Amino acid sequence: MFFASDNAGPALPQVMQALVDCNAGHVMPYGADAHTAEAVRLVREAFEAPEASVHLVATGTAANALALATLSQPWETIFCTPVAHIHEDECNAPEFYTGGAKLTLVGAGHKMTPDALRKAIEAEGTRGVHGPQRGPVSITQVTEKGGVYAVPEIAALAEVTKAYGLPLHLDGARFANALVTTNASPAEMTWRAGVDVVSFGGTKNGCPGIEAVVFFDPAHGQEFELRRKRGGHLFSKHRYLGAQMEAYLKDGLWLDAARKANRAAGRLAEGLRKVGSEFLAEPEANVIFAHLTRAQHQALHADGAVYYLMDGPLETGPADEKLLCRFVCDWSISDEQIDTFLALL
Amino acid sequence: MFFASDNAGPALPQVMQALVDCNAGHVMPYGADAHTAEAVRLVREAFEAPEASVHLVATGTAANALALATLSQPWETIFCTPVAHIHEDECNAPEFYTGGAKLTLVGAGHKMTPDALRKAIEAEGTRGVHGPQRGPVSITQVTEKGGVYAVPEIAALAEVTKAYGLPLHLDGARFANALVTTNASPAEMTWRAGVDVVSFGGTKNGCPGIEAVVFFDPAHGQEFELRRKRGGHLFSKHRYLGAQMEAYLKDGLWLDAARKANRAAGRLAEGLRKVGSEFLAEPEANVIFAHLTRAQHQALHADGAVYYLMDGPLETGPADEKLLCRFVCDWSISDEQIDTFLALL
Amino acid sequence: MFFASDNAGPALPQVMQALVDCNAGHVMPYGADAHTAEAVRLVREAFEAPEASVHLVATGTAANALALATLSQPWETIFCTPVAHIHEDECNAPEFYTGGAKLTLVGAGHKMTPDALRKAIEAEGTRGVHGPQRGPVSITQVTEKGGVYAVPEIAALAEVTKAYGLPLHLDGARFANALVTTNASPAEMTWRAGVDVVSFGGTKNGCPGIEAVVFFDPAHGQEFELRRKRGGHLFSKHRYLGAQMEAYLKDGLWLDAARKANRAAGRLAEGLRKVGSEFLAEPEANVIFAHLTRAQHQALHADGAVYYLMDGPLETGPADEKLLCRFVCDWSISDEQIDTFLALL
Amino acid sequence: MFFASDNAGPALPQVMQALVDCNAGHVMPYGADAHTAEAVRLVREAFEAPEASVHLVATGTAANALALATLSQPWETIFCTPVAHIHEDECNAPEFYTGGAKLTLVGAGHKMTPDALRKAIEAEGTRGVHGPQRGPVSITQVTEKGGVYAVPEIAALAEVTKAYGLPLHLDGARFANALVTTNASPAEMTWRAGVDVVSFGGTKNGCPGIEAVVFFDPAHGQEFELRRKRGGHLFSKHRYLGAQMEAYLKDGLWLDAARKANRAAGRLAEGLRKVGSEFLAEPEANVIFAHLTRAQHQALHADGAVYYLMDGPLETGPADEKLLCRFVCDWSISDEQIDTFLALL
Repeated sequence: MFFASDNAGPALPQVMQALVDCNAGHVMPYGADAHTAEAVRLVREAFEAPEASVHLVATGTAANALALATLSQPWETIFCTPVAHIHEDECNAPEFYTGGAKLTLVGAGHKMTPDALRKAIEAEGTRGVHGPQRGPVSITQVTEKGGVYAVPEIAALAEVTKAYGLPLHLDGARFANALVTTNASPAEMTWRAGVDVVSFGGTKNGCPGIEAVVFFDPAHGQEFELRRKRGGHLFSKHRYLGAQMEAYLKDGLWLDAARKANRAAGRLAEGLRKVGSEFLAEPEANVIFAHLTRAQHQALHADGAVYYLMDGPLETGPADEKLLCRFVCDWSISDEQIDTFLALL
Repeated sequence: MFFASDNAGPALPQVMQALVDCNAGHVMPYGADAHTAEAVRLVREAFEAPEASVHLVATGTAANALALATLSQPWETIFCTPVAHIHEDECNAPEFYTGGAKLTLVGAGHKMTPDALRKAIEAEGTRGVHGPQRGPVSITQVTEKGGVYAVPEIAALAEVTKAYGLPLHLDGARFANALVTTNASPAEMTWRAGVDVVSFGGTKNGCPGIEAVVFFDPAHGQEFELRRKRGGHLFSKHRYLGAQMEAYLKDGLWLDAARKANRAAGRLAEGLRKVGSEFLAEPEANVIFAHLTRAQHQALHADGAVYYLMDGPLETGPADEKLLCRFVCDWSISDEQIDTFLALL
Repeated sequence: MFFASDNAGPALPQVMQALVDCNAGHVMPYGADAHTAEAVRLVREAFEAPEASVHLVATGTAANALALATLSQPWETIFCTPVAHIHEDECNAPEFYTGGAKLTLVGAGHKMTPDALRKAIEAEGTRGVHGPQRGPVSITQVTEKGGVYAVPEIAALAEVTKAYGLPLHLDGARFANALVTTNASPAEMTWRAGVDVVSFGGTKNGCPGIEAVVFFDPAHGQEFELRRKRGGHLFSKHRYLGAQMEAYLKDGLWLDAARKANRAAGRLAEGLRKVGSEFLAEPEANVIFAHLTRAQHQALHADGAVYYLMDGPLETGPADEKLLCRFVCDWSISDEQIDTFLALL
Repeated sequence: MFFASDNAGPALPQVMQALVDCNAGHVMPYGADAHTAEAVRLVREAFEAPEASVHLVATGTAANALALATLSQPWETIFCTPVAHIHEDECNAPEFYTGGAKLTLVGAGHKMTPDALRKAIEAEGTRGVHGPQRGPVSITQVTEKGGVYAVPEIAALAEVTKAYGLPLHLDGARFANALVTTNASPAEMTWRAGVDVVSFGGTKNGCPGIEAVVFFDPAHGQEFELRRKRGGHLFSKHRYLGAQMEAYLKDGLWLDAARKANRAAGRLAEGLRKVGSEFLAEPEANVIFAHLTRAQHQALHADGAVYYLMDGPLETGPADEKLLCRFVCDWSISDEQIDTFLALL
């Protein structure tokens, strides 16, 4: 009954096997190995982007901060939502990597709208050299609250960014989960819709630690490489990054894993709905924000369920007070675990 | 016949097995797992430093840059040798992580001497606010040219740093190899000799990607944690870092691996000596800088030997001109490979 | 009829005379001159803070950014209002000087309230190493919209910052104007109320370019000196900074100048009120945000009045539409200019 | 008898008068005033560079650091001599403004030679993404040890920088003094010889605080403007910068001042030579490094002469030991002062 995060589950067995399999003999370091080459090929293939510049890093924060730094100047501001991971959960990594760019918060929710974006862009960049200059726009797919942008929603945002000549970054820590929800292809969800760079996540969906930064305009590649090295994110034994991504993408493993996670979340949401729990937003992928009573939370915790409580305190207060919490399902959650959990309710 | 670097060989089977073994069930992310706890315990035990603050990262550049940034101010200068990895091979990562500190090059060789250090320190910090202020001293063990500091040599350097109130950092990318050479204990080579923080390497000695930063004064721990997160170096699925370090340290595996590497280098050096090759410095661990004639290099390359040529060009020039090259042996190099290589000479 | 800003008027004749007078013979550079010493003495005297660490710089942005950087860590967030000069008008200087700290916007208006501040602080610093850590609080006096904090209002904010152990910075670009409004002493408005550091402005109130950064805890002085030098803000011919501040503070010149500016703004506000103009906020010092009709703006512009229009466009739209504008009075504005201006309405 | 530095003397009366004269009425801030416009025009005229992008700042460190940052990337290294002001006397300002670029020291002396530069460039940029990338080259004219590059010497260095596609920066803190020595025109000494950007100093040669950064390729202008603002170096009351530079350049005032300074130094050098003092390098402009005996230094200090002693200690040691010192003459030093000084010897 572990719903704290999709970074808490085990890696996919096929990915672990790939790590073991690649561990033979000497290979050139720093990405000049066959596994990395194959991983890059598979990413390009998945995105139908044969020219894309593809770079592997081990953490999502590295992927986001390095990607945004490559597209920003230190005197610019990056547009994102108030709950964006880059704003709330990276301890100022974007500010660090960009050399002091600002983050401008767009709208009030977890999904950016074209109107809110246009308004935010219009409000910046009007003070000559005095204010920050307009910089990249960053959205998260699946959003931090479990929402999913439909492809036309992304395209509508991209239309705004293009109108202002600003690059569009997509934080795809849960990219695969969003694909499963929307039934779109990677290309449709990104460059065909107007996205310029993706942090393409593997870690939350079943890998030990692998993210690919994908620039659809390869002109950014060399600068990214220098930024990656300077940030300490270039692995010498790079084959262990390459092998992860290679296995993750081979034979649709990544989509299978995301399907399992989304299906598990669906089962969980259905059960929660039945016991009258209300959702912060309609669950669309593998992340659920739901309200349960304090009494329910107390019972669940007592029985060992693990998940994040957003409100509090757990221990004291009216038993029937509704407290918000987050459930995340990873690929490895079994129906049995979910049913045991729901039975407790 | 792969002597390009010890980052090119396979990981130790026990370490890979540990990765596979740890891959079961859900565990808390970001270091709150049992493998990380055990890894920290084993590092402290190895260093006889039960209070030490121990932090795992995946690359040596991250370990060095984060450790030095924690001990520096942006207006200071870090003292290191002209061939220090932090100066030559990290694409300005120390400057980046410190927020713009300088590196002052001490002496002319790969081993810092107390006299050269004292002279360099004296020359800095004499201009009030105009010049850079004195900052940490960083040495590399095994040095970038294959030399090893004896424990009293480290203690003599530490005596100088203490006299000026400066912290001493040891870049221990090949720490285990130096231990094998000197027969010292980790404690003797570090805090007992006056070292304040170590980048304790696992990657070059048989792990996929693991380094521990060890502060003997735990007061630095919290700042390091914030710097690590901000740098994108905090892994969510941290168990895969913990498991590596745990397996690496268990039952002396790390020292066995270093012994193999050093022994292989010894065998190679002996063979080189027999064919009249001259060394840049007497090989002491697993790194050899040697001169061979252009003709010898051409023959070796033709037969598929892989190593770095420091001089050039390979293709044209007098056949008997001596060209410097570097050989590094990792734990996995077999006697057979070495003998085949030597036979080519 | 120049109301664009108080940085557009001439300097006080006494300050210019002081520049001329100090221009004799050789004196030691970098602040080791008698004028700087006297300026520091006078600042301490004005603030009744004989131990304060006082540093002169030439621009308000330098004063703010250097002061905040001295009190922050790069992984922290600085709390300020959404219209703070440090947020809107310094092209990311605080982010630059702090090495990438974040700015968290408190409340929705130009005056910070204790409740809004408490709420903002509570919302940050709750995510361990994942989110930014809590850093300094910065308020502006006179506010960017012309409001003035009463001393008890500052004290109430300081009570909140102290409760969380956070330093309180006061951007006093128009400090003298606020003193005149509140009739408080410099000490009452700052350290007695709980302020830790002030950017004490001279430029907007009649000097060519001089600001003093005043730390009431002198322990911050040496770090500030290094940051100032590193930022290129240490003047070699420092006497020209010292002389400005010396003349500014001598014989109450600074308060006289502020009185003139506030009185001029009062006259202007009265006139605006008579013609039915509505204020964004009740004018309290020398800055007025008022609404006039497009027709009125057009007439004023046609006759050469200079001020900033916040809404637009000026040229087209309903003649009776109310458009917001800003008027700032400096010490040199004459009654005649104001009356001429008002006559146009 | 004040020879400590040319930043210790008074400003030229004409420059002070210009400050007084410009102090009338309201003008637009931030450089949109007539004095700044005229200053820019005069700089362009002096350099015969009608398209140049010209920017005023108040300190030499700001000029150098901002100019170099505009031409660098954080992962690059800047080539300069070991005694360069940017390396020794700016408390890491270049590292700060560039976001962490490195400085590579070229040769061993105060004047860079093409051979040493070529060698230094060749040694960098050979390690792919591992080492720093090649960045701008910076030379100082007059050098920090009082030497002057002849125009062909600059051209020879520029030939090297062009061969590698690197920009050439000239730190012209004492640019006027070098012009007087070489009898070259500003254009000949800069863009015609291959210089890309100049820090054109006014402060040391008789202004309170004014430097112009001159980019011969105006494409760099907008980025510089943003960097200047972000660094807190954009003055609101910009007319006081404009007026300084305007007066400095009008009617050849700047060259007259430099002639006086150089002539004074020539008189001083002649006198020193007569008493047997030896020079570190043959004095060429207004800076002299000379050896005098401890006894001579003691006598001079006792009689109130002010200058920097590079060796020490003054008080104890053999009376006839030669100690190096620096004398700098500014425009205001009178023959009488020099003769009085020499008479003491």
